[in-house]
Amino acid sequence: MTSRGKRPVEVEDESDDEDARDDRNELPREAPKAQAKAALGFKKKLKPDNVILASIREFSEASKKATVETRTLAELNLSHACKEVVDLSTTDVLSEIEKTILHIAQSILNGKGFGYNIPARSSANQLYVPELDRIVLKDKATFRPFANMSSVRKTAITTRILQLVHQLCQKRIHVTKRDLFYTDVKLFVEQTQSDSVLDDVSCMLGCTRSSLNVVASEKGVVVGRLIFVEDGDTIDCTKMGVGGKAIPPNIDKVKDFVSDALFILLVEKDAAFMRLAEDRFYNRFPCVIITAKGQPDVATRLFLKKMKTDLKIPVLGLVDSDPYGLKILSVYLSGSKNMSYDSSNLTTPDIKWLGVRPTDLDKYKIPEQCRLPMTEQDIKTGKDLLEEDFIKKDPNWIKELELMVKTKEKAEIQALSSFGFQYLSEVYLPLKIQQRDWI
Amino acid sequence: MTSRGKRPVEVEDESDDEDARDDRNELPREAPKAQAKAALGFKKKLKPDNVILASIREFSEASKKATVETRTLAELNLSHACKEVVDLSTTDVLSEIEKTILHIAQSILNGKGFGYNIPARSSANQLYVPELDRIVLKDKATFRPFANMSSVRKTAITTRILQLVHQLCQKRIHVTKRDLFYTDVKLFVEQTQSDSVLDDVSCMLGCTRSSLNVVASEKGVVVGRLIFVEDGDTIDCTKMGVGGKAIPPNIDKVKDFVSDALFILLVEKDAAFMRLAEDRFYNRFPCVIITAKGQPDVATRLFLKKMKTDLKIPVLGLVDSDPYGLKILSVYLSGSKNMSYDSSNLTTPDIKWLGVRPTDLDKYKIPEQCRLPMTEQDIKTGKDLLEEDFIKKDPNWIKELELMVKTKEKAEIQALSSFGFQYLSEVYLPLKIQQRDWI
Repeated sequence: MTSRGKRPVEVEDESDDEDARDDRNELPREAPKAQAKAALGFKKKLKPDNVILASIREFSEASKKATVETRTLAELNLSHACKEVVDLSTTDVLSEIEKTILHIAQSILNGKGFGYNIPARSSANQLYVPELDRIVLKDKATFRPFANMSSVRKTAITTRILQLVHQLCQKRIHVTKRDLFYTDVKLFVEQTQSDSVLDDVSCMLGCTRSSLNVVASEKGVVVGRLIFVEDGDTIDCTKMGVGGKAIPPNIDKVKDFVSDALFILLVEKDAAFMRLAEDRFYNRFPCVIITAKGQPDVATRLFLKKMKTDLKIPVLGLVDSDPYGLKILSVYLSGSKNMSYDSSNLTTPDIKWLGVRPTDLDKYKIPEQCRLPMTEQDIKTGKDLLEEDFIKKDPNWIKELELMVKTKEKAEIQALSSFGFQYLSEVYLPLKIQQRDWI
Repeated sequence: MTSRGKRPVEVEDESDDEDARDDRNELPREAPKAQAKAALGFKKKLKPDNVILASIREFSEASKKATVETRTLAELNLSHACKEVVDLSTTDVLSEIEKTILHIAQSILNGKGFGYNIPARSSANQLYVPELDRIVLKDKATFRPFANMSSVRKTAITTRILQLVHQLCQKRIHVTKRDLFYTDVKLFVEQTQSDSVLDDVSCMLGCTRSSLNVVASEKGVVVGRLIFVEDGDTIDCTKMGVGGKAIPPNIDKVKDFVSDALFILLVEKDAAFMRLAEDRFYNRFPCVIITAKGQPDVATRLFLKKMKTDLKIPVLGLVDSDPYGLKILSVYLSGSKNMSYDSSNLTTPDIKWLGVRPTDLDKYKIPEQCRLPMTEQDIKTGKDLLEEDFIKKDPNWIKELELMVKTKEKAEIQALSSFGFQYLSEVYLPLKIQQRDWI
């Protein structure tokens, strides 16, 4: 990437230099001088790429060394008190199911009747473990007897789901929750019923939902310095054009991550993803760029987690400067409450908040007209977030969020376009990396 | 794919044969016999793959010969009366913009003032052309003078958009509508304003929005027997695992389609896409599988159109059996009203309706409990669709839709899962192809 089209000092002159012309166009007509100065100021701060690269490489190496394997409940002597699920091989899932059924046969023969021990998934049974930086389930469980008016249906559904999952694993195929529902609409009646029992089953067997071969539909995409094997196909994400590679719904078909990337850039929106992919940002600064196009879906979260675990490189988050952007970061970081039993496989701890941060708005002189006033709801959400553990554990995050709530201003990543369409990839991000400006 | 796990006659016996066991599991507990018979019946109808392939190959060849290039308004002597936009090279767009500006300078010098001739995009100015099977704009245009209180702002915005687009084309980069908006929030105030003027500009210059290098964010995916070049990278869609390749937002970066596919399978939902991708359906029946995951986005429609035009193979549509599924087909077929000026580039005429069709529900004995009652809204939408041109032009489509409205029953593609998770890829689709059962 050259520094073409970035010489605002020439804004007023009539030079025939195309770049200068570009540039004049590129800056909003209103008060071009001021805007130009701002853009130029940061442009000037940029050191040569090799210097910037050295800076990030050092950080990357450090975090590689520093990376501790995801800690387990056992290490914290919490395994007795807490419930977490793990990824199980298809064979293990099969035997877990068979064990469960044999156990029940036993219990029937012993006259103890037919029923399941189902871990409670209610928020009352949830716990945030700071050492793990994620939400886990406490060990409360309830017995679900067949010989009981109130639970007979649920027990039948549970048995049916166990049978269907057993079949999926035997066939080594994956289906969606919707497919599962349709195999026995008469029994399930509503998908919510088969869905919730599916979660029960995955808790009961102590394995992730994807180990059960029931997958969520994907919407995430990935591009950059990453090669991996998907269902036998070798995927080179540096050769995925500008659209990128669609992240597969079944993570267990993904393996053998190979990468020379120095960091993973986690992007909230596909517009920013598109800009970076088209500018081949990952070739200037070796990285992997990933987005779930908004609210993170399970497939993308599993993919990010696996990537981070295998490659051991830092993850830098680029989200809008609003409470929603922070919520999105938090889902990647510490998981969503309703999947808490699966948090260890879905959450990626230690994601750095690169931007766009509330302090960036002034620091990068984002024009007033590109900042949006926060709605009442925004402000409320922001204040609620101040109570969340993932914010509270870092004073810098608190500072930023407090500033947001105080100024009542928010800004989207695209607000950077006010300095030029490629400002994000050519100035903002390189400078962020050079200055290691993340928290 | 073998015929494993499909011998319902063995449902009741205790055979140790794993397939039979699978199979018993695979069928809903309720009235397995009946369900089993149904499944078996259609399974039996299936001829060997080479026979099925011969059938589709013949059809594919025929449609290749038959394929007429998309007809133009000129061919119909309508060009004087109708307005349509075409794909222009970046260089042509640049000169179009420069011409427009020169023309204005001229008009100012001649004392005729500063303004633009903007084609009207209101539905009053829209026309469905049966010969083209798509909606086009009539030639009504309005003058947008600068020296007029009511239009001065819009004229300024128009000029600014022209300037920004000129810059995009000079730099050969692509941005989203959102990026465009943020380059001058103070002038545009709301994105709806820059968006609508952007459409004006593309009408005025007579080129597609993507020729203006302003692109929509993509959400479609493609997989199967297709190789193409995207921004210099060669993409082999047979090696895209189960997740498939994300369809790029900027179609002009896509070229050199190569394929030995016999047909394109257009799928409404990603669940069905996932099933077919995992089963590598495209290797058993050479095809390209594409989905926009619901409502078709511009990028996916452009990609489908380009694929159909270049490969000249039939497109078979697989959508839910409800009015929404038909609406989705119609968007691919004849476009949406608000983009009618761009219809020739966005619409793919002659998409066959393969299924799931209302007549399939009984024909394939979809169990009652897997059919859903249509809501009042569904029924109303269905009745409205009966008035739509794309339905009225084919008696078979009318018949199907009338049946839907009469029975007040709808069904999703996944309803086929009631016969087994792989029924779609192993029985339903092969039989459809063998019997050329589409309209």
